[in-house]
Amino acid sequence: MRIVSLAGGIGGARFLRGLLSAAPGAEITVIGNTGDDITLFGLRVCPDLDTVMYTLGGGINEEQGWGRAAETFTVKAELAAYGMEPQWFGLGDRDFATHVIRTQMLAAGYPLSQVTEALCDRWRPGVRLLPMSDDRAETHVVITDAEGRRAVHFQEWWVRLRASVPAERILLVGAEEAKPAPGVLEAIEAADVVILPPSNPVVSIGTILQIPGIRPALEAKTVVGVSPIIGGAPVRGMADACLTAIGVETSAQGVLDLYGSALLDGWLVAEEDAEVSLAGVRVAARPLLMSSPEATRELAAAALALAVELS
Amino acid sequence: MRIVSLAGGIGGARFLRGLLSAAPGAEITVIGNTGDDITLFGLRVCPDLDTVMYTLGGGINEEQGWGRAAETFTVKAELAAYGMEPQWFGLGDRDFATHVIRTQMLAAGYPLSQVTEALCDRWRPGVRLLPMSDDRAETHVVITDAEGRRAVHFQEWWVRLRASVPAERILLVGAEEAKPAPGVLEAIEAADVVILPPSNPVVSIGTILQIPGIRPALEAKTVVGVSPIIGGAPVRGMADACLTAIGVETSAQGVLDLYGSALLDGWLVAEEDAEVSLAGVRVAARPLLMSSPEATRELAAAALALAVELS
Repeated sequence: MRIVSLAGGIGGARFLRGLLSAAPGAEITVIGNTGDDITLFGLRVCPDLDTVMYTLGGGINEEQGWGRAAETFTVKAELAAYGMEPQWFGLGDRDFATHVIRTQMLAAGYPLSQVTEALCDRWRPGVRLLPMSDDRAETHVVITDAEGRRAVHFQEWWVRLRASVPAERILLVGAEEAKPAPGVLEAIEAADVVILPPSNPVVSIGTILQIPGIRPALEAKTVVGVSPIIGGAPVRGMADACLTAIGVETSAQGVLDLYGSALLDGWLVAEEDAEVSLAGVRVAARPLLMSSPEATRELAAAALALAVELS
Repeated sequence: MRIVSLAGGIGGARFLRGLLSAAPGAEITVIGNTGDDITLFGLRVCPDLDTVMYTLGGGINEEQGWGRAAETFTVKAELAAYGMEPQWFGLGDRDFATHVIRTQMLAAGYPLSQVTEALCDRWRPGVRLLPMSDDRAETHVVITDAEGRRAVHFQEWWVRLRASVPAERILLVGAEEAKPAPGVLEAIEAADVVILPPSNPVVSIGTILQIPGIRPALEAKTVVGVSPIIGGAPVRGMADACLTAIGVETSAQGVLDLYGSALLDGWLVAEEDAEVSLAGVRVAARPLLMSSPEATRELAAAALALAVELS
């Protein structure tokens, strides 16, 4: 079986681990969000791709959900001793090496998709990991604070400000000109089913859907999504701040309507959200909390079973 | 008093610490060798400038003589885990931050002299540290080994091969087009005396002297050098391998003849080399071993006193 999954960071990566466990023989292609990517200290950082790679490759900091296990922060402390900004982004020493290699390969002319493949040669995540695009398309957020109204990089809003300042607009700068990375459309076309994990519907899944060509390709397939919202609150993260910014209610119904019936064929929600509905979409209630490897595998298996049933 | 000193790495940096101690009120400008500079993992590394900066700024690994105190090697181990070459160059985590900043500033268009000044803002070495040139002039070494006759970067010959393969030629690639960094010629012109520490006469001092304009400027000044050779052997390092490559005998006399009387006014040698001589150069014998801070200060004071006497 051929499965395509879109993915953001922590939630998506954990779900994928469940999917790998639930479908051991399947050929899984993951289309990763690169809208969060940022250049820090001259190094290109791809937080979501790395979270997927480290999580599936056994290198993740399990408690934190991002970054490397047994991480140290010597380089970061030294950069701070030199007075280098920004100091709010937690680049660890182990993680640093990944960004150094990526930056060097990009400078040598390799596209991000080939860089990602080279990095995965070490991590062997068990999936084919593709960036949504080799082109630069970065999420920026319009805010108003003491410095006035301005657009900041998504990471500055998310990590430095902890989304405490309301997002007035969320923009994917460069989206119009971006093309899907090589293999993305081909993988979607060849897929038996497509799964949307409970990643952020605005700045993870929503970002990937903005790359021209990806949404139409997905609409032609059987797609099952897993709600990132349970009873009006995000399962994890700050998806509510993102949904509010685009005028969508933080609810399983709100995200279902956002994705729409042209994209979705099935929608997994928590028991307490069982009443949500949309014409043309099969809604099923399941335990959504990925509280253990077993619970995560059960959830992924349920999403997959529903997708197979609907295909 | 205004003093100019040329400097390579470990030996030069230690001598400079003695000079700072011997002449506390003096205004010292150090012209550092950048022929050893190398780009590793996309990062620009300036080993000699950093050795001077760390040594005078209190950040050096004292036992080793290069690199940072309390250093760790997490990034290097991670790069190796990815299979990245070269693995023979010991880039520590603390040191890494320096190179990241330098690389970022160079990419932003700052010349190396301004980058060095910015890095010294943290280290406050007590001297004005200038690179010999803002232009790229890199030392390469022609060798013949199992891979045939070829030119390798100086660091590959020095660090990876430990100078175990004979150097057939030593070339400063880019020397003809290189200009002295801003401030270099002005500092020499304004200097009361110039001191050549016991740095490598070929690939440190000799490299600096190859930058067009520097040697003639020095020849107009009172210059005292300290022999890096005692009784036929280098005080430290592998200067003999470099001297042999350019057909110069490894002796205090050989280096004296190499520098020549147009450049030198005074030459400090060890007691056992007291018989060396060159018309027009005052030779004086002193203890040359920098075996303690006091011995180093004494040596620097002797060089300075001779220079003042001759000026």
